[in-house]
Amino acid sequence: MQTDNFKGEEKIELPQGFRAAGVNAGIKDGGRLDMAMIASDRPASVAGTFTANRCPSAPVQVCRKHLAGRCGRAVVVNSGIANAATGPDGLADAENMAAQTAEALAVAADEVFVCSTGSIGPRLPMDIIASGIAKLAEQCGPEGGEDAARAIMTTDTRPKRWTVRTEVDGKAVTVSGIAKGAGMIEPDMATMLAFIMTDADVVAEDLQRALSDAVDASFNRITVDGDMSTNDTVLLFANGAAGNKPLECDGPGWTEFTQALGEVCSRLAWMIVADGEGASKVATITVAGAAAAADAEMAARAIANSLLIKTAWAGDNPACGRVVDALGYSGAKLDPATIDVSYGELEAIRNGERGCAAEAELREWVSRPEFGIRVDLNQGEHSATVYTCNISEEYVRINM
Amino acid sequence: MQTDNFKGEEKIELPQGFRAAGVNAGIKDGGRLDMAMIASDRPASVAGTFTANRCPSAPVQVCRKHLAGRCGRAVVVNSGIANAATGPDGLADAENMAAQTAEALAVAADEVFVCSTGSIGPRLPMDIIASGIAKLAEQCGPEGGEDAARAIMTTDTRPKRWTVRTEVDGKAVTVSGIAKGAGMIEPDMATMLAFIMTDADVVAEDLQRALSDAVDASFNRITVDGDMSTNDTVLLFANGAAGNKPLECDGPGWTEFTQALGEVCSRLAWMIVADGEGASKVATITVAGAAAAADAEMAARAIANSLLIKTAWAGDNPACGRVVDALGYSGAKLDPATIDVSYGELEAIRNGERGCAAEAELREWVSRPEFGIRVDLNQGEHSATVYTCNISEEYVRINM
Repeated sequence: MQTDNFKGEEKIELPQGFRAAGVNAGIKDGGRLDMAMIASDRPASVAGTFTANRCPSAPVQVCRKHLAGRCGRAVVVNSGIANAATGPDGLADAENMAAQTAEALAVAADEVFVCSTGSIGPRLPMDIIASGIAKLAEQCGPEGGEDAARAIMTTDTRPKRWTVRTEVDGKAVTVSGIAKGAGMIEPDMATMLAFIMTDADVVAEDLQRALSDAVDASFNRITVDGDMSTNDTVLLFANGAAGNKPLECDGPGWTEFTQALGEVCSRLAWMIVADGEGASKVATITVAGAAAAADAEMAARAIANSLLIKTAWAGDNPACGRVVDALGYSGAKLDPATIDVSYGELEAIRNGERGCAAEAELREWVSRPEFGIRVDLNQGEHSATVYTCNISEEYVRINM
Repeated sequence: MQTDNFKGEEKIELPQGFRAAGVNAGIKDGGRLDMAMIASDRPASVAGTFTANRCPSAPVQVCRKHLAGRCGRAVVVNSGIANAATGPDGLADAENMAAQTAEALAVAADEVFVCSTGSIGPRLPMDIIASGIAKLAEQCGPEGGEDAARAIMTTDTRPKRWTVRTEVDGKAVTVSGIAKGAGMIEPDMATMLAFIMTDADVVAEDLQRALSDAVDASFNRITVDGDMSTNDTVLLFANGAAGNKPLECDGPGWTEFTQALGEVCSRLAWMIVADGEGASKVATITVAGAAAAADAEMAARAIANSLLIKTAWAGDNPACGRVVDALGYSGAKLDPATIDVSYGELEAIRNGERGCAAEAELREWVSRPEFGIRVDLNQGEHSATVYTCNISEEYVRINM
């Protein structure tokens, strides 16, 4: 995940040929925005990645099916209800949501993608959804990105958007995206969604590879509470409006494009952790010196998901011992006598024992809004990085 | 885990030939009990099970070594400092603690077991430990079980003890035990310890089998926060003072003995969950109908360790959807369309969709201090049960 040297800006600027809207359809009360639409004026190549949850929501099932054609014109989203654990009826609702959007935009139903986020269990109110789709189709425009970013929010305290401009094949190209996700919200809410648009022209199969790589290095490296949603979805639309020669994997312009895409994914992922429910700190956990990539991954995730460590941070407790404990049960191959852990430049653990850093220095380090912890297992050459946040009393209150 | 039809009582009554003590050595302030000793007047067969953590504490390493002889005379315990992540020096401290106890009791050093619980990282204050051992050896007596139960406490809000009397080979036999564990306490505290004594005569190898089976069905089926300690230890001493013909696996009296042992382990394990840090409810999670035992286990543990589900319960939120979500990411083989979930008699999920139970009824169910949730995956014949508790704001405050 790139974490600095950003080229882009924290705003949503739709690439050429894209329109968007966000409206209050009436799923949420108080006039809050609860439905969003993004549409491309021309057929776009589409790539997608979805939750690995074996109980995927109905909209995830529809998206997977529609992705087979690799061609998309729009995505329609509602927040408030996840349309998960809703069985065949819920699947029909999601298909209807796509069909109604297709009709409103005069495109094919299998070119429309559908996402929902919110309570698991309840059915969608299809009359409200229908009126929402009509409003969205009417209001969809080049300035609607900000409303769309807000309409997909659930427990998020702020909208998440990032835009990078670059150049490929002598053409100005924009990659921009919006995301939502913070952990959970009202009972049973739990999802991350991200929608990324570009006016670059990209060969469809290669677009999927670019997205998969970018997601692996960003959204797949963050954790708030370790609970994987039924609805997680990342979609990337490339409509070619920039007029460049179609980008191919490792061909001219590929590096520029994938760097821009990587930055958008990384920044959106970072914003999700930083907006983690009740969270006030983002921690970057790097495990190096692992015998295999899987060991590095298990070790980093054990630390990033340890409830004990994350609650300790809430009280500025560095929890060095708990880090060793988590490494011990992570499943990673290790020798306790060769474990080194540093908090920034501070030597917390050296050869498996408490290092020379003073407790007060370590406390100061984990009191910061962003801090890094680096483990060296001294067993090999593999490493992994995961981004996580603290768990506070506020997290419990939000999810009670 | 047996959860009813108890024959025993919530008290500690030392079996014949055992003595115990609990003292304030000075590791903890305020005169709180912080060291305990249990000793047998005669050589006892010993069985033990230990943490699977790959960074085991020094005392765990010493216990494993001494267990090779299968013969024990005493265990000495301190609370306040875990003697973990202390390297070779910490190992020497643990060995000294055993040697000093052996000298005070005039037994062999490898017949003494050592346990520590508390902060991970700091060294033991060996002068304080030495004076504590002297006090313990002096005070050790038949009435000292209660003080020992209190001296091993860390964040525990109450001592945990259970005694069962039974008869084998026409002789009255007592099985009694004490335990500690509640999650964590002061920074970096996290351990469960249990010490079980019996005056039954049991063949040493068979004693280990009896203990392993009892632990699998009790201490290995509980979870408070999913963090496995570096120090977890269960020790069982059988000194044969009852004068029965030595018990052998599946021979006469084996059933009576293992039932009593099972009950002691189950009750102590239950008390640990019920005293979980900040917890107010114990939930019994049963997953049935799994294709394989490992699937049942993974599914039950995913629910029992889901932070989202456990925080939901804190607010009397039944979190049915989150249960489906956790099943989905558990890794268990399943078909979403065949998942049934019941809260007691209430049908929460039927064929993967929200069942007929009213939300208010489900809320009432999870508002109880003890409640059960049963999942049927309808994929096979295997099942597993895990005991867990809610996670409250208090948990975060304790561990900050």
